[in-house]
Amino acid sequence: MPIIDPLPISGFKEFLPEEQIVLERMKRIIVKNFELYGFSPLESAAAEREEVLLAKSGENTKLIYGLRLLERSDQDVGDGKDIALRFDLTVPLARYVAQNYGKLAFPFRRYQIQKVWRGERAQKGRFREFYQCDIDVVGDGKLGLLSDAEIPAIIYSIFSEMQLGPFQIRINNRRVLNGLLEYLKIPLSYGDGQSTMNIIDKAEKVGIEKTKGMLVDLAGATNEAADALIEVLTFKASTDETLKWLSAKLYGELFEQGVRELSEVMNVVRVLGVPEESCVIDLGIARGLDYYTGTVYETTLLENPQFGSVCSGGRYDDLASNYIDRKLPGVGISIGLTRLLAALFDNGVVETGPSSPSQVIIFQMDPALRSDYFALAAQLRSSGIKTEVYPEDAKIDKQSKYAVKKKIPYGIYMDQKRKGDGVCTLRDYRADSESTMNFNETLTYLSS
Amino acid sequence: MPIIDPLPISGFKEFLPEEQIVLERMKRIIVKNFELYGFSPLESAAAEREEVLLAKSGENTKLIYGLRLLERSDQDVGDGKDIALRFDLTVPLARYVAQNYGKLAFPFRRYQIQKVWRGERAQKGRFREFYQCDIDVVGDGKLGLLSDAEIPAIIYSIFSEMQLGPFQIRINNRRVLNGLLEYLKIPLSYGDGQSTMNIIDKAEKVGIEKTKGMLVDLAGATNEAADALIEVLTFKASTDETLKWLSAKLYGELFEQGVRELSEVMNVVRVLGVPEESCVIDLGIARGLDYYTGTVYETTLLENPQFGSVCSGGRYDDLASNYIDRKLPGVGISIGLTRLLAALFDNGVVETGPSSPSQVIIFQMDPALRSDYFALAAQLRSSGIKTEVYPEDAKIDKQSKYAVKKKIPYGIYMDQKRKGDGVCTLRDYRADSESTMNFNETLTYLSS
Repeated sequence: MPIIDPLPISGFKEFLPEEQIVLERMKRIIVKNFELYGFSPLESAAAEREEVLLAKSGENTKLIYGLRLLERSDQDVGDGKDIALRFDLTVPLARYVAQNYGKLAFPFRRYQIQKVWRGERAQKGRFREFYQCDIDVVGDGKLGLLSDAEIPAIIYSIFSEMQLGPFQIRINNRRVLNGLLEYLKIPLSYGDGQSTMNIIDKAEKVGIEKTKGMLVDLAGATNEAADALIEVLTFKASTDETLKWLSAKLYGELFEQGVRELSEVMNVVRVLGVPEESCVIDLGIARGLDYYTGTVYETTLLENPQFGSVCSGGRYDDLASNYIDRKLPGVGISIGLTRLLAALFDNGVVETGPSSPSQVIIFQMDPALRSDYFALAAQLRSSGIKTEVYPEDAKIDKQSKYAVKKKIPYGIYMDQKRKGDGVCTLRDYRADSESTMNFNETLTYLSS
Repeated sequence: MPIIDPLPISGFKEFLPEEQIVLERMKRIIVKNFELYGFSPLESAAAEREEVLLAKSGENTKLIYGLRLLERSDQDVGDGKDIALRFDLTVPLARYVAQNYGKLAFPFRRYQIQKVWRGERAQKGRFREFYQCDIDVVGDGKLGLLSDAEIPAIIYSIFSEMQLGPFQIRINNRRVLNGLLEYLKIPLSYGDGQSTMNIIDKAEKVGIEKTKGMLVDLAGATNEAADALIEVLTFKASTDETLKWLSAKLYGELFEQGVRELSEVMNVVRVLGVPEESCVIDLGIARGLDYYTGTVYETTLLENPQFGSVCSGGRYDDLASNYIDRKLPGVGISIGLTRLLAALFDNGVVETGPSSPSQVIIFQMDPALRSDYFALAAQLRSSGIKTEVYPEDAKIDKQSKYAVKKKIPYGIYMDQKRKGDGVCTLRDYRADSESTMNFNETLTYLSS
């Protein structure tokens, strides 16, 4: 008798095999493109020392899962008490780079595709365990703008290959915004340390009127300053027009540096072959985090803007000063893959297919031919064709139902008569058709 | 000033990029072969409910890491208190199959490559966080022997492709051993429930004399019974001779069933093309776990037997009766990849190579040619060549040192003169040679 009801844990998303296959395909596209740009794989430990996490956790502190042994009797296990699960991949990157500083080549380019854990209330689209797919380029002391410019090209490659419909990478530079706030004498923070950047970040969502109200009432901007800021945030034009318009504005040194950086980044983005309509300047992009200092990125699926940004990031000046006495500036992005895939399924943007990677299944029609079935399977596999042999003697109906349930595209039937004739029957489940051919023809057909 | 010393956590192994690249290569070989045999990918949540783990944890109970929020103030986060990290991939498989029983096609074939956590004392070759790479075929009610026979073929494909030197898959059947104990009236357990199978399991390590002593003194075997058992455990001959020798023994029904199963499995293994010298019957293989009931497997690297078994598993009758009122027999194996790779590095069986996947790096020789460098990079990448552009203006010496440190195989130099001639210089770092060629030749050369 079963003793435990196998309930799911809310927020710890698990996929069915047919969903997991889609996830794996997306991961492979992401990895392929990260590697095409020369990023090295990295996996960090699931756990960090609590003090490492707490040094950079900010408002995530309350979401951190600590680890402790269920039974404390084994006194030999020492550091179980002060370690906790990572809540992102940036803190582990910072700690890893600091720890291995002497062994790494800088600029350090790494990709990292791992799960992170956040003990918050699980709800639609918000998980407690989820994948982040990150790349970062980390410089030692300094890092030029060319790395900022490659990032949109990588995002473009990945989202093109994923075929999730039209998308747009939106780029801004925090110096443009910070310079503007400085010039307009709008404080960077207000109240008990809330960031004005968060008001800007939410402007698109809440609308102009409400944003202006918050800038004036909360952040203490004058009416004129709020209007001037909103004029910039909402400016929409082509890249060249936007850069020309910005260049004509005399909003001080920081602002102008931001404009120059934006211009240089957009130039290289163009050289890298990213089409203009897929990568635009959006002066309203702020990214809430204080951490960012230069270029910032968001990515929107144009037919599903309600997903929010599906790939975001930016440039930062200081990755790891909590852990090492070095200035390590960098630039990076993150794709929240679990959340993205769940949204794609929920909205019918992506459909599931087979629940098995098998391209073909060989049916057991006659126990006397078992060796032939397995020999044929071995031959198919040696040509790289993913093959399973139905693993038991069973009625052919049952075997066929199994193939249909898993949506395996092809099935091979062979009995004594066919074997004598040197042929087998290949069933195409999607076309609902069958054809009889010899083994070499079958191999060629399935390889094509 | 840094405030936290970025120390590693003992037992939570992290690799350097050049090591991680080897790990990724091994994972890809494993995944490729699992999929060639039609196993579907599965990832389970890192955490399980404590009661799910405790129902099947046995002696692992004391190693389980529980999760709790560092700050308990957020009362909305409910089930943080009763969840814990998985310590293997079998318990999650059992719970997953029970939970999704109605949605899965049986026999259910899944592979799962994920980390598991065990809070034990970390020591050489024993980690607190490590990869397991598992496959299982799970039947609904019953599962034929053909699945047992495919397993050695999969192990053979994987370890051949990994090129870790000669290896041997060693196969036995628990019914042979259990039948023999029954026939010889040697109790299956002794003392406070210790398993006689553990004495058998350790026989190769401790030697015949000591094993006999334990069988007689601890397990209560007669001298004659111990001798008869040891005769079987230590019998070494070819597969055919072993099966013939076993068939002549009249040790009762259970024993004879075990011999028939072993015979059938070995026949199909041969059909699947596994060479005789790579897959042998070893009647001394027991696998300690009570869980196994039929075929059992171990895999030894013949030049590094001190690693122990690098891929083990077996047949079981009851996967999930703790969670579902169904008999779900299955067969599976596991590769402990973190432990294996660490041992391979430590023993010099595998060497690290580049710390980057980049096949080529394009150097920045002249800022005026930046567009050309990026355009060339884009062209190389569109041919699938992993390419990085040195991301900053820097002295060419510094750029070259970076390429050498990362062991990137090729570098491309282009300046105004070369550009005018329509050529670039390709440096081969491994051959320590350079040649000048046009872009198409470069592309062809790097693609080959």
